[in-house]
Amino acid sequence: MISEPTLVLRKDICRANINRMAEKAREHNLAFKPHMKTHQSKEIGQWLKEAGAEAITVSSIKMARYFAESGWRNITIALPAHPGQCKAINDLASNVNLSLLVNKKATVQALKKSLVHPLKVYIEIDTGSNRTGLNVNQLSDIKNLISDIEKIQKLKWIGFYSHPGHSYQSDSKTEIQNVQLSVIKQCQTLTAEFKPSNGEFEVCIGDTPCCSIADTFNGIDAISPGNFVFYDLMQYQIGSCHLADIAIAVKCPVIDVYPNRDEIAIHGGAVHFSKEKLQHKGITHFGMVAANNDDQWHIKNPQTYLKALSQEHGLVKCAPGTIGEYKVGNTITVLPIHSCLTANLMRRYTLANGETIEQMPV
Amino acid sequence: MISEPTLVLRKDICRANINRMAEKAREHNLAFKPHMKTHQSKEIGQWLKEAGAEAITVSSIKMARYFAESGWRNITIALPAHPGQCKAINDLASNVNLSLLVNKKATVQALKKSLVHPLKVYIEIDTGSNRTGLNVNQLSDIKNLISDIEKIQKLKWIGFYSHPGHSYQSDSKTEIQNVQLSVIKQCQTLTAEFKPSNGEFEVCIGDTPCCSIADTFNGIDAISPGNFVFYDLMQYQIGSCHLADIAIAVKCPVIDVYPNRDEIAIHGGAVHFSKEKLQHKGITHFGMVAANNDDQWHIKNPQTYLKALSQEHGLVKCAPGTIGEYKVGNTITVLPIHSCLTANLMRRYTLANGETIEQMPV
Repeated sequence: MISEPTLVLRKDICRANINRMAEKAREHNLAFKPHMKTHQSKEIGQWLKEAGAEAITVSSIKMARYFAESGWRNITIALPAHPGQCKAINDLASNVNLSLLVNKKATVQALKKSLVHPLKVYIEIDTGSNRTGLNVNQLSDIKNLISDIEKIQKLKWIGFYSHPGHSYQSDSKTEIQNVQLSVIKQCQTLTAEFKPSNGEFEVCIGDTPCCSIADTFNGIDAISPGNFVFYDLMQYQIGSCHLADIAIAVKCPVIDVYPNRDEIAIHGGAVHFSKEKLQHKGITHFGMVAANNDDQWHIKNPQTYLKALSQEHGLVKCAPGTIGEYKVGNTITVLPIHSCLTANLMRRYTLANGETIEQMPV
Repeated sequence: MISEPTLVLRKDICRANINRMAEKAREHNLAFKPHMKTHQSKEIGQWLKEAGAEAITVSSIKMARYFAESGWRNITIALPAHPGQCKAINDLASNVNLSLLVNKKATVQALKKSLVHPLKVYIEIDTGSNRTGLNVNQLSDIKNLISDIEKIQKLKWIGFYSHPGHSYQSDSKTEIQNVQLSVIKQCQTLTAEFKPSNGEFEVCIGDTPCCSIADTFNGIDAISPGNFVFYDLMQYQIGSCHLADIAIAVKCPVIDVYPNRDEIAIHGGAVHFSKEKLQHKGITHFGMVAANNDDQWHIKNPQTYLKALSQEHGLVKCAPGTIGEYKVGNTITVLPIHSCLTANLMRRYTLANGETIEQMPV
């Protein structure tokens, strides 16, 4: 019995995920710059270091600062830099080899005014996710931006960064591979157009589905996936991982049982799972109940799923005929839809031996 | 300019919301037991105390502990108690006048075995939200449960608790009032059936829409709304508050501007807002951009809204012809859909004078 929702981490699975991705990077001659936003933890960062990572990717100044404090010296902030960050960037760059994404001349100009320490700069490319970055067909805009950056003594343009987040919308491994082929084609265009004859140049690509599934990386020099350390039901559904690769789950106390409607209530709500949901065979759900009967995850029954969340409560729809298995005070285990958001809410991992791993302070 | 997403709290609006609800409770002769889950902060708790609250409601043992440490001595945990909590409940009850929701005989029996300190107990009633609690027509089940509770020397049954969360699904003030009328009818049935001729007895009801809108509370003795301290766009849309009553908003840096698709990217994502969304006139959105031009909130334009969120990025769709107003590094202000989830993610409030208020540790 547990008293409150608990995020459990299977260290063995997580380290296997890390080692597999690090090995894949080596095989394809890619720099491995894992994104820390998923786990936000020094300890898990250490596992990445032990697997060979020498550089990391983060999504905020705060996260860069936290990992700098734990010894990382080569950090990319993979969110477009903006003028409001200049002071914080300067502070960080005083003791870290910092790389930024710079997509606008206004940011170049703001950095010019305030920079004390040298910085590396990627231009972000929107390879199809329609989120941030320049489009590969804006060749003259890209050329002008490189020229603006190179005029600033303390800025060094080092290449292109892209997060092909549209791979998350895939329905199958084949679709993920098609995203990768399209991304590679765009990267090759950029390399042909802009790679200097000598000096530092890198194309870095960031999404877990492509990095997990793709078998060709021609035109890509570095990868920065994040989610792969834990994976989740979304990644499983699109074919990016096996169910057995999911490394975190939320253990929740059963707080009520409703035989008349085949439902149980759990302590486990939107502040534990997030409201990320998934559709599967006509069911919309916030997580699937896992069987706990051996060393592998199993989905207990596709008809046993988290059907509704309020702030602290969850309602689990139970497959017909199974309601008798649940009792108030029992613990159930729920596999999350999106491990990044669930981990971000829970802030702490509990290992099988009862030890806990804290995330960075909020 | 700001460097990162910042949750701003309008103290004047928040205190006015608090004072208005406290005054309404006094007018209707209701005990005021505000729910602390929305703000999770000792300081805002103090504003509630200054408005007259002597008892509070929380949603977890951890939250009860935090508010007990700041001096609250009368606390209801409004989540069904379960056997896994017995040790934590005992610890808390040693220095707090603690009330629990107990819906199952198994919980009564577990408490019987472990209790050292006396506890008060509500039975939770499901007045229509189909979440947790017994149904008002389960009169004999309720009777048996009261009898089970009363057999335990350290447990004192004190009445009924309900969260009519179905009021959140309302489309108008009239629908909210209809929910309240239905709830009142159920409460009156329970009171007629179970109110003892003497001794403590209370019916406590918890949702912000009914507490904000209803003008009749016959049959209700106490209220425990939470969201009303901040309100949000969901409450505004269903008619539970005015736009000017919304007390929190998220200030976000603009990190990119896309004139060709009338969109801007902001630093402000699912880890700041939550993925709670709202539908309004055919648009699904995660928040609305507020105008900042005077002391009141205004929705800048119903066609300027947060259209997509990833972990740290947000994409704002801008009304046609307005994209020229935005520049990288500028700050925009977004009114949240669900303030409870946004505040839970942000963990810290910034006041107009720059002071910050921290939430309970995670």
